[in-house]
Amino acid sequence: MPSIEDRIQAIEDRDEIRELTARYCHAVRDGAGEAVVDLFTEDGALEMNDRKFEGHGELRQAYGASMRQPTPRAFIQNHVIDLDGDRATGQCSVEIRAVEKGRAFTAAGHYDDTYRRDNGSWRFARRLLHIYHWVPLADGWGDDAEGTGPPNPLE
Amino acid sequence: MPSIEDRIQAIEDRDEIRELTARYCHAVRDGAGEAVVDLFTEDGALEMNDRKFEGHGELRQAYGASMRQPTPRAFIQNHVIDLDGDRATGQCSVEIRAVEKGRAFTAAGHYDDTYRRDNGSWRFARRLLHIYHWVPLADGWGDDAEGTGPPNPLE
Amino acid sequence: MPSIEDRIQAIEDRDEIRELTARYCHAVRDGAGEAVVDLFTEDGALEMNDRKFEGHGELRQAYGASMRQPTPRAFIQNHVIDLDGDRATGQCSVEIRAVEKGRAFTAAGHYDDTYRRDNGSWRFARRLLHIYHWVPLADGWGDDAEGTGPPNPLE
Repeated sequence: MPSIEDRIQAIEDRDEIRELTARYCHAVRDGAGEAVVDLFTEDGALEMNDRKFEGHGELRQAYGASMRQPTPRAFIQNHVIDLDGDRATGQCSVEIRAVEKGRAFTAAGHYDDTYRRDNGSWRFARRLLHIYHWVPLADGWGDDAEGTGPPNPLE
Repeated sequence: MPSIEDRIQAIEDRDEIRELTARYCHAVRDGAGEAVVDLFTEDGALEMNDRKFEGHGELRQAYGASMRQPTPRAFIQNHVIDLDGDRATGQCSVEIRAVEKGRAFTAAGHYDDTYRRDNGSWRFARRLLHIYHWVPLADGWGDDAEGTGPPNPLE
Repeated sequence: MPSIEDRIQAIEDRDEIRELTARYCHAVRDGAGEAVVDLFTEDGALEMNDRKFEGHGELRQAYGASMRQPTPRAFIQNHVIDLDGDRATGQCSVEIRAVEKGRAFTAAGHYDDTYRRDNGSWRFARRLLHIYHWVPLADGWGDDAEGTGPPNPLE
């Protein structure tokens, strides 16, 4: 039976991890690349489609280049978290409103996350983004849309 | 004045109930019918429009047949929970991205939920889904869209 | 080091503030103007675009007149909260589905909130709504959409 102290700590950890994913969305929206990178551990990684950005250096490339104006607006929901001491895993859904070449894009997917307590703060150790669709709003996410993905931040 | 123990228990209960509604979305997305059914109590019920699926047997029909590919993607927000011992009620909003006959559909509504602690885990005793609209994305939710509803899972 | 009691209180405060923003959405949806106003302190204010509604009297104008049928459906996500005793600040994202003159509108933005514990309940002291776009769904939020805003509730 966990102690009162342990139970409170676990609740606080879960709250902090939920806010981590929220702060990520706000920082991306603000185009604050360095703030986004700082939400990851030094060896943290972002994976989406078949691309991987690992460590602060590569993450800086991803979040620097991809943050064209207007920045994508991401909305996180359905967060499930499993704590294991100073590590945790979680899954959360995401909806995204983006603009590419002046056109409205809509996207949805989910993150498989690994979190780590790092110098007293929870950070992303790894985010694996599964995109269901990333499509022009005018086209929608019907059958033709499957397999589409977000723009390559390095292009 | 509730005890420390009672207050912690209440916070944990609320967290678990929030995750219950999140796990529901993830299981529906995965087409994991049996996992969805297991989130309901044995006598649990789902009601939407004028249809009712009550008990694991009927729920299996609903979640088996309705989970055509691609499965609906649901996003839960605005969760309010009222605890009452081993029972609780709650209301949460939902947005849904679906595909019917190859076309993108968008939906929104809210659940009036009743939860029950069942063998140590919170489960759905009843979900009453109020759909505001369930429409082709290309048509939108303007005046013409009122009264539409989700497809009958038994058809 | 905060006490056990203080830590539990902080967690409860955060939960209550999250539910405050959820109850706001449900009350707006129900067109329950007086219930919405009661979620603000007596001197509470709502600001959006360059308009400001301050105090229950002006808020009644805003929430009375703007709640044409169908009412806007708002969905809150990405909530970050900073507690400071009986005051708190927070930021949360919002997506909105509205209908104007029979047409489907979609909107997104975020609230910069100030909360205050008022007679034992958390209420809004100030909501500053930043709208990214408020556009016909058929048009989307592409480059042409920037600078659009919600309808004036007093017109």
